[in-house]
Amino acid sequence: MDETHIPRHQRISRLPKFLFGAPYYPEHWDEETRKDDPERMAAAGVNVVRMAEFAWDLMEPRRGEFDFALFDETIARLGSRGIDTILCTPTATPPAWLTAGHQDWMRVHADDRRMAHGSRQHCCTTNPEFRAESERITDAMARHFAGNPHVIGWQTDNELFCHIAECHCAACTAGFRNWLKDKYQTVGELNRAWGTQFWAQTYDNFEQIGIPYEERPTYPNPGQHLDYMRYMSVALCEFQRGQVKILRAAQPRWWITHNGLFSYVDYWEFAKDLDFLGVDVYPAFSVTEPRKYPSASLSNETARAASGTYIVPEQQGGSGGQRPYLLETPRPGQMRLWAYQSIAHGADGILHFRWRTCRYGAEICWYGILEHDNVPRRRYAEFSQEGAELQRIGGKILGTALQAQAAVLVSCEQDDAHATMPFGLPSPGWQRHFAYTEMLARHWPAGLVDASDSFDGLQWLLIPSFVLMDEGLAAKLRKFVEEGGTLVATARTATRDKNNQVIAQTPPGLLAGLLGVTVEEFGKLDKPLLTIERPGGEAIPVGAVYEILRPRGAETLAGWSAAADGCPHAASGEPAVTLNRVGKGMAIYVGTYISEENAHALFDLLPGHDGVTPLAKADSLVEVTCRHAEDHKLYFVLNHGTGEATVRELPAGIDLISGSACSGSVTLPPFGVAIVEQK
Amino acid sequence: MDETHIPRHQRISRLPKFLFGAPYYPEHWDEETRKDDPERMAAAGVNVVRMAEFAWDLMEPRRGEFDFALFDETIARLGSRGIDTILCTPTATPPAWLTAGHQDWMRVHADDRRMAHGSRQHCCTTNPEFRAESERITDAMARHFAGNPHVIGWQTDNELFCHIAECHCAACTAGFRNWLKDKYQTVGELNRAWGTQFWAQTYDNFEQIGIPYEERPTYPNPGQHLDYMRYMSVALCEFQRGQVKILRAAQPRWWITHNGLFSYVDYWEFAKDLDFLGVDVYPAFSVTEPRKYPSASLSNETARAASGTYIVPEQQGGSGGQRPYLLETPRPGQMRLWAYQSIAHGADGILHFRWRTCRYGAEICWYGILEHDNVPRRRYAEFSQEGAELQRIGGKILGTALQAQAAVLVSCEQDDAHATMPFGLPSPGWQRHFAYTEMLARHWPAGLVDASDSFDGLQWLLIPSFVLMDEGLAAKLRKFVEEGGTLVATARTATRDKNNQVIAQTPPGLLAGLLGVTVEEFGKLDKPLLTIERPGGEAIPVGAVYEILRPRGAETLAGWSAAADGCPHAASGEPAVTLNRVGKGMAIYVGTYISEENAHALFDLLPGHDGVTPLAKADSLVEVTCRHAEDHKLYFVLNHGTGEATVRELPAGIDLISGSACSGSVTLPPFGVAIVEQK
Amino acid sequence: MDETHIPRHQRISRLPKFLFGAPYYPEHWDEETRKDDPERMAAAGVNVVRMAEFAWDLMEPRRGEFDFALFDETIARLGSRGIDTILCTPTATPPAWLTAGHQDWMRVHADDRRMAHGSRQHCCTTNPEFRAESERITDAMARHFAGNPHVIGWQTDNELFCHIAECHCAACTAGFRNWLKDKYQTVGELNRAWGTQFWAQTYDNFEQIGIPYEERPTYPNPGQHLDYMRYMSVALCEFQRGQVKILRAAQPRWWITHNGLFSYVDYWEFAKDLDFLGVDVYPAFSVTEPRKYPSASLSNETARAASGTYIVPEQQGGSGGQRPYLLETPRPGQMRLWAYQSIAHGADGILHFRWRTCRYGAEICWYGILEHDNVPRRRYAEFSQEGAELQRIGGKILGTALQAQAAVLVSCEQDDAHATMPFGLPSPGWQRHFAYTEMLARHWPAGLVDASDSFDGLQWLLIPSFVLMDEGLAAKLRKFVEEGGTLVATARTATRDKNNQVIAQTPPGLLAGLLGVTVEEFGKLDKPLLTIERPGGEAIPVGAVYEILRPRGAETLAGWSAAADGCPHAASGEPAVTLNRVGKGMAIYVGTYISEENAHALFDLLPGHDGVTPLAKADSLVEVTCRHAEDHKLYFVLNHGTGEATVRELPAGIDLISGSACSGSVTLPPFGVAIVEQK
Repeated sequence: MDETHIPRHQRISRLPKFLFGAPYYPEHWDEETRKDDPERMAAAGVNVVRMAEFAWDLMEPRRGEFDFALFDETIARLGSRGIDTILCTPTATPPAWLTAGHQDWMRVHADDRRMAHGSRQHCCTTNPEFRAESERITDAMARHFAGNPHVIGWQTDNELFCHIAECHCAACTAGFRNWLKDKYQTVGELNRAWGTQFWAQTYDNFEQIGIPYEERPTYPNPGQHLDYMRYMSVALCEFQRGQVKILRAAQPRWWITHNGLFSYVDYWEFAKDLDFLGVDVYPAFSVTEPRKYPSASLSNETARAASGTYIVPEQQGGSGGQRPYLLETPRPGQMRLWAYQSIAHGADGILHFRWRTCRYGAEICWYGILEHDNVPRRRYAEFSQEGAELQRIGGKILGTALQAQAAVLVSCEQDDAHATMPFGLPSPGWQRHFAYTEMLARHWPAGLVDASDSFDGLQWLLIPSFVLMDEGLAAKLRKFVEEGGTLVATARTATRDKNNQVIAQTPPGLLAGLLGVTVEEFGKLDKPLLTIERPGGEAIPVGAVYEILRPRGAETLAGWSAAADGCPHAASGEPAVTLNRVGKGMAIYVGTYISEENAHALFDLLPGHDGVTPLAKADSLVEVTCRHAEDHKLYFVLNHGTGEATVRELPAGIDLISGSACSGSVTLPPFGVAIVEQK
Repeated sequence: MDETHIPRHQRISRLPKFLFGAPYYPEHWDEETRKDDPERMAAAGVNVVRMAEFAWDLMEPRRGEFDFALFDETIARLGSRGIDTILCTPTATPPAWLTAGHQDWMRVHADDRRMAHGSRQHCCTTNPEFRAESERITDAMARHFAGNPHVIGWQTDNELFCHIAECHCAACTAGFRNWLKDKYQTVGELNRAWGTQFWAQTYDNFEQIGIPYEERPTYPNPGQHLDYMRYMSVALCEFQRGQVKILRAAQPRWWITHNGLFSYVDYWEFAKDLDFLGVDVYPAFSVTEPRKYPSASLSNETARAASGTYIVPEQQGGSGGQRPYLLETPRPGQMRLWAYQSIAHGADGILHFRWRTCRYGAEICWYGILEHDNVPRRRYAEFSQEGAELQRIGGKILGTALQAQAAVLVSCEQDDAHATMPFGLPSPGWQRHFAYTEMLARHWPAGLVDASDSFDGLQWLLIPSFVLMDEGLAAKLRKFVEEGGTLVATARTATRDKNNQVIAQTPPGLLAGLLGVTVEEFGKLDKPLLTIERPGGEAIPVGAVYEILRPRGAETLAGWSAAADGCPHAASGEPAVTLNRVGKGMAIYVGTYISEENAHALFDLLPGHDGVTPLAKADSLVEVTCRHAEDHKLYFVLNHGTGEATVRELPAGIDLISGSACSGSVTLPPFGVAIVEQK
Repeated sequence: MDETHIPRHQRISRLPKFLFGAPYYPEHWDEETRKDDPERMAAAGVNVVRMAEFAWDLMEPRRGEFDFALFDETIARLGSRGIDTILCTPTATPPAWLTAGHQDWMRVHADDRRMAHGSRQHCCTTNPEFRAESERITDAMARHFAGNPHVIGWQTDNELFCHIAECHCAACTAGFRNWLKDKYQTVGELNRAWGTQFWAQTYDNFEQIGIPYEERPTYPNPGQHLDYMRYMSVALCEFQRGQVKILRAAQPRWWITHNGLFSYVDYWEFAKDLDFLGVDVYPAFSVTEPRKYPSASLSNETARAASGTYIVPEQQGGSGGQRPYLLETPRPGQMRLWAYQSIAHGADGILHFRWRTCRYGAEICWYGILEHDNVPRRRYAEFSQEGAELQRIGGKILGTALQAQAAVLVSCEQDDAHATMPFGLPSPGWQRHFAYTEMLARHWPAGLVDASDSFDGLQWLLIPSFVLMDEGLAAKLRKFVEEGGTLVATARTATRDKNNQVIAQTPPGLLAGLLGVTVEEFGKLDKPLLTIERPGGEAIPVGAVYEILRPRGAETLAGWSAAADGCPHAASGEPAVTLNRVGKGMAIYVGTYISEENAHALFDLLPGHDGVTPLAKADSLVEVTCRHAEDHKLYFVLNHGTGEATVRELPAGIDLISGSACSGSVTLPPFGVAIVEQK
C-alpha cells in the first residue's frame, strides 16, 4: 500500500464495509439469554462484533488445553446472519493458573505496591516470560481461527496503559537499561545527554541506572524522566509487535487494530504495526455540558492524527460507571449524536460498548445496548436507528477523508516533555484543547496533525508550546511557511533540545530565525496583572505566563499592557505577539499560552485566516466537519445544543439522514444530525 | 430467656439497676491522686465503673506473672461505696514483651504497611497465635475475678475495628480462604457466585484467592469484595466468641457487652454472643450545630436495632480530640442533654468518658469529668446532676422499651454491598440519616429496625435502596404489607442477588410483584435537571438518580417533570413514585434517593402516615421519644436548640426531672430535658 | 571570642567584608561559557562565590581518586579578580559509585518507601558508614584547599532536612535507642517519662522501642514522638559536627556556616558548631502579595534568633520553580528589595541564587542572575546595582546589630511539641507570624528571640503558647518581669512538662504565680460564637480557643462576651485577658491564640507599649528596622507596596542609597529602599 505520498491524517479506509456493531461477551451469558442475540443484532443493522479480549481463562482453562468452542459457535451463528467478528488477544487478563507463583510478572507501582490478580492489566507487558505467554495464546488463537471466514480482523490486548503505565519491576528496569545502552552506546554519552553533573548524578555504568521516581525524595532528572517515558512507549510497541507478527503470519487478510488512547503511548509509532488505530470514545467522561462537546472531537482527532482512518471499538452506549463514579446518563439522541461525532472526524466503524450490560464483575454499571434483564428499550431503539442509517449511508462514508486547512500540531514526545517538568503550567494538550475548540467554534475545516506527518494541504498551523525542537522539525516548519502557510507558535516553544536540556541559544532557538523574534524574558504571572493590548480592540487575557519579545525582523502585532496595579512591571509596553513574513507565508509568535479565556480574542488578533474557509455559519454548539472523496463531499452537521439550531452557508445537496434536499441551510432539533452530501 | 417472640429492637433490660458512672483508669494515677475518687464518685451518684481495657502490661508484666493487685484494691474500695465494676479484656493493647518478635501478628494495611507497637489495635484478631494469647489473658482474668462480688459484667476488647478493619496479613488470607471453602465447598461454585468469567478471574483452587485490593491496579470483583467484608465480620465474631466462652464458663452471673459501633461489623450477629450491646456515643463528632442532633440519635438507634436494650460504655464527657483534631467544647447542659438523648433511644446505662483526663499518652485532650489537675469543675457538677436525677428515676426507666411505629430498615450486608460498589451515590446509611431525621422532625415514634428482626408492631417501613434481595426478606416484606403495613422502597432496591450480582429480572425483581411496578430505566443526574412533580404541590428535588417506572398494578403518585432546559429527557412525564395496594397495606416505590433536600417533601407526598401517631407537637429541634412498660410511659422531651422551646400535645403526667405536673405542654430552656411520665 | 555576655541575637559579625555574590557551578558549564564570568562578576561588585556543594562526582570520580582541578582553576581565576570562595562539603549528593550496593544507606520514609539515587538527600545522615564517607570527602577537600588563600569559609552540606527529615532506617532506629539509653539510663525511667501505662505501651528493654509512626494504625505516644523529634536534631548536629571538626583542624582561619532553615532542626544547638548560621531566603514562596512581606522577615529573624549575625547563602534571584510549581516572577526592584530586607534583619552577606540558570537537571527553572543563554539582562543590571551599593555601604553595615525592644520568643522544642499534638490548632509558628507582623506594622524595633537566649534589652516579650515549661525558663521569665519587662503569654502556655505530659497543676502551672491567674476551663470554638469584649472598644475576635481565667492576684483587662446565639456559654462574661503587676513589670495572660484577625486589636488592648519606641511612622507596607553600632545607626526603610510611600518621624541623617540628606522623612517609589544613617 503506497500511501506514503499523502499525509497520514488524510488516509482513507480500505475496509470493504462501514463497520457497525458492539463488543460482545458470549462468555458472560447462558445459552438461553444469548439465543436471540444474532437476530436482534441483525435487526439493528449490526455487521460486526468484537469478542474474546477477556476470555483467556475460558479459551485455555488449563495450560495447553484450548477450548474455542463457544467462540466457534458464536462466530458461526453471527456469521450466518451476516455479522463478522473482530477477535482480540486476551492478554489484559491472564488466568489465575498462569500467574500463580509469578509475583515477579506483576507490575510495580511507583509507591512499591505490586499489582495482583483480581482486576486487569496487572501483568507487566515488559516481562519476557509474560511476553512469551502472550505470544503463545496469540499463536493458539491465530492458528485456530485462521481459516474462519467470519473473522475479519483483530484487536491487540485491550486499552493498553489505561490503568497503569509506569512500572518499576525488575524487567522494566533491565529493559530500560538495555534501551539506554542501545541509544547512548556509552555511559559517558548518557551522562552528557542527561546533564548528570547536576546533583552529582553521574553514572559509571548502565547497571547503576534505575527508573526515575517522582519523589525519592525529590525531583528526578528530566533527561532520565523523558527517556523513561519514551522507553515506556517503545516497550509497549514491542509487546504488541510480538502479537502482530504472529497474527500477520497466520492469516494475511486480517487487519489489526488496537483500542486506545492513553498517556505515554506514542501512537504515531504504535500505529505503524497496525492497519489502523482504534479509539475508545466515552464522551460522558468530559462532556458534562454541551459547550464541552469538543473533548470527544479531540479524542477522535488524536486517533486520526496518528492513523488517518480509524475505528471506534468502544463508542459510549448508555451511562457508564465504575466503583467510584457513575457518569451522567445520556439523553435521547446523545448516544447517536456522539457516534456521528466520531464518524464526522474520520471513524470508519462504530461499535457501541457493549451489547448487553454485564450482571457481575467490576462493570455492572457500564450500560450497554441491552440491559441486565435482556429487554430492548430506548438504547436499542436508538442503536437500531443508527444501524439502519449507517446501512444506508455507510458506503458513502467509506473512502472519504477529512482535509484540515487549519491544524494544531500534536506530538507524544512534547506531551511527555511537559509531563517531566510541568511547573504547574498548562500542557500542550490543554492548549490543544482550547485552540481546537476555537477552530470548531469558527467551523473551520480543522484538525490535529502529528509533528511527524506531512503538512501538505495545511494553511494555518498552531504549535502549542512545543518545548522540544530539533533541526528536522524546524526545517519542516520553515518550508511550511515559505510555501505560504501561516505558523503560530506559543510561549516556550523551542526552548529545549531533544535531551530535554534547555538550549544555550536565546529562545526560540532553532525557530528564532523563522519567527524573526527572540524572547528577552520569560515570566510567570499568578494574578491577572497584565493583558495583551490589541490595537483598537479589547484586552486579551494572559495565559499564565508572559514573554517579553524582541523583534528581529518581525513586526509587533500586540504588546503587553501596563500593570493593573500601576506599579512597574518588566513586561509593560513590551511586544507580546509578533508576525514575521517569510517566503509566501507568515510566522507568528505569541508570548503567552492559549487558554479558555483568551482563545477567541487571540484568534481574532492573528492573521492568516483567509487561507481557511469556514464550512458553514452556525452557533458554536453546532459542530460541522467535512469528509470527502474525489467525487463527493459529506458535510456532517451536529447539534450538540439542547435547543433547536439553524445552520447556514452550507453547500446545496441532500441530507442523507432525512433524505431532504438542502439548499444551504438546515435546522436541527437538540442533538440532531444532518449529513449533507455535495456532489 | 425466651424473648424470641418479641422483636429484638423492643427487648428490655434485665439489669438490676440503671447504670451510671465512667470508665476509670486507676493505672494512670498515683495513690495520692486516686484517693478521693470513690467518695467523689459516690457523691455524684456513680454506681458503676469500667476498668482495665488497656492494662495488660500492668496485669501481666512478664509472661505468666499476673498482678491484679491494683484492680483488686480499686474494686474493693469502690465496692465499699456501692460502686460496681465492669471489667474488660485488655486485648486491644498487648504488651511489648508479648508481640516483640511477632511481626506476623501485626495487621497489614491495604497499602502493605504493617502496623506496629506504639498505639493500639495493631495486632490482627484473626491471627491464631494472637487469639490464643487473647484467650490466655481472658482466662487468667476470669479465674481471678470470678469470685469478686463487685464485678458485675464484662466488656470484650475495646472498640473493635475503630481504627482499622481490613487486613492483608497471612492469617487473614488463610482465614478468608477457609471461610470460602466452607461457604462454597467447590471452587466452581465460587466462580459462579463471583462471576469470575468477567475479566478472566476464574480460580482453579482456593489457594489462588486473595483478599481483594481496591486498586491493584483497578476495581475488584464485587462478589469477592462483599464476601471479604462478610468474612471480616465473621472473623471478628470468632475472636470475640473465644473470650466470651471463657467468661461465661468462669462465672455464669456475669453479663457481657462490647462497645461499638464501627463499619464492617454485622452487629446483629455480633450481639448474639453478648447479653446486650454497648455503643460509644460522642455527639460532637457530627453534631456541629443543633439541627444535626439526629446523628447521635442514629448511633443509639443502630445499637437498639441490633440489641434492643444496650448501654453506653462511653458517653461524651468534655471536649474530645486526638492528634489531628479537637472537637468543639460542649456548652453547659449539652453533656447531660446528650446523655438523656441516649437514654431516650433505649440506653439502660450511661458511663461518661472518662473519669479523669489523662496526663499522658495519645488522649491528653479527651476531656473527662475531672481535669488533669483533679479539680472538680462544671463537668463534675453537670455529671453529679445527672447522677442524682438517675438515682431518682433510673428505676422507672429500667424495664421500659421503645415501640417504633415507623422505621427505617438497616442491614450491615446492605451497607457492605453499597461499599463494594458505591458509584459515588448516596449510601443506605445516608438515606437512613435523612429519612430518620425527617421522622424525628415529625415527632414520630420511630426507629431503626434490622432486616433480620421481626416487623411486629410497625406501621410504616422504609427500605433505603437495599440493593441485595432474597426470597426470605421479600416474603417478610410482603407479609408486612398484606397485614396492613405501609412499605416504602427507594431507587435501586432489589437489583442484585446475595452474590452481589445484578439480577436477570427487571427490577425491583423479587419485589416487583409486591410493589406493582418495574423500573424501565435507571439513570444518573449530575445537575438538577428534573424534579418530581407532585400533583398540586411543590416540585420535589431529585436525589442523584432517576428511575422511570412502569406501573404493573400500582397507581402513580407523582411523575418526573419536563427537563429544566426544555430539551427532551428520557424521564420527562414518566412515573416517578407509585403506590400498590396489597392486602390491607400499601407498597410504595420511590424512583430516586432520599436526600437532605427532598426528605420533607417526599414524606408529605407518601401516604400511610395515619398509622403513625406523633408523640407531641414541637419545633424540629425538639426531640421526643417514648419508652414504656406495661404500666407506664416515659416521654423524653429534649430541646437541642439554643433557644427556649415549648412542646405541646404531650400526655398529662409528671415531669420526672422537675417534679412538676405536665398538662400536655412543657417549656424547656436551651439544652433542657423533661421526662413526662404517663401512667 | 568572649561574646557570652551579650544576647546571641545581638551578636555582630567579625567578617572582614560584607559578602556579596552568588552560588556558582563551574561544573555545569564549558570553558567557553565560563570564560567571561570572573570579569562579569567583578563588574557587578561580587566579592565571593559559593561552590562545590553538589560536585562530589566530579571531585572524586572513582574511590580515592580526587580531581580538584576545575575548582583550583576557578578559585584562582576568581581570586585574581578579588573574588573569594566559600566551599561546601558535597554530602547531599554522594556519587552513584559510592552508594551502589548500599541500599541500607538510603533514608526510609514513614510509608516504608526507601529513597534512591537520582535526586538529592537520599542518604541517611545517621548511617555510620555514610558518615564515614562524609568525613572522608570532607577531609580530602580540607587537606587540598587548606593552603588556598582565596578559600575563606565553608558551608556544610546543603539545606539539611529540606526534603525529608524523618527516617525509619535501621541506623536511625539504633541511634534513637542509644540516645534514649543515654537520656534515660533505665527503661523504667523512659516508661515513666513517656507515660507508657497509657495503651499498655510499657517497654521491658530499649530494643523494643521503635521510631514512632503517625498512623500504625493510630496516634503515637506524644512523649516518644517529641523525643524522636529531639533525636532527629541531635543526630543531624552529630553529622555536621563530624565535618566541622575536620575543617577546623585543617585550617583554623576558615569560618563555617550552613544554609537552613527547615523544620525539626534546633538551630540554637546546631549553630553552636558553626561560626554563624546561613539562611536561604526565597520570598516568592510566601510573599504572593505585598502585605505578606513579613514572611521573609521571619525567615531572617529565625536565623538571627539562633545565630545573631548570619549570611544568606541563597537569596532569591529570579523566578523559581521545580517540577510541580513555578513561583511568580519578581518585578523590577523586588530582587534588590528582598536582599535589603535580609540585610535589614541582620544578614552580613548576600549571595543571589544562582549565578547562571542551569540548562539541565531538576532546576532548569530556578532562574539565576544570568539566563540559560548567558546574556546579561535586567536581573544582572539589578544585581550590579546592589553590588555597587554594597561595595559603597557594606563597610558601614558590618559591625552593626539589631536591638529588639519587643520580641516574640521562639523555641524549636515548642514547635516540635506542637507538632506532636497539633489538634488542628494554630502552631506557635503561626502565632509568631501574626504577632511579629503586627510588630512590624507598628514599626517597632522587634524581633525573634530564642528561649535559650538572654532577654537583656527587651521591654516587651510575647510567648506564643509555649506548652512546655520548665523551672529554668519560668525563672528567667519572672526575672524579666521583675526587672521591668512586659510579658505576654497566650493560651495553653505552660500546660505540659518537658516530657510532653500535661502537668498535674492547674495551668499555667509554673507560670501561674507570675501571671497571677489560673485557667478554669479551656475550650475549642469552631464558630465565632464569642469575642473578647474590650472595655470601650470593639470586640476582639477569638483565635480558635477560649480559656476561662481565674485571677489570682491579676486584674482583668477584658472578658468574654455573651454567646452570639443568646444561649448560655461557659465562658460568657468570664475573664479572658489578665494583667499581673510583678516587681517593676507586668505579666499578661491572653486566654486565646493570636490570629490574623485579632492581632491588631489585641495589641491595642495590651499595655506596656511605652517601653517600645517605634522607629518611624509609615504605612504598614513599609518595613523599618534599625541596625546600629556604638557610633552610628542605620535605619533600613523598605517599601514593599506597589505605590509610592512617605515615611515620617525618622531621625535626621543621610540616605546612604541616594546620598541625600534626610530630615526625618523619605518618600520611596514602589519597592524602593532607603538606608538613613544617623550618627
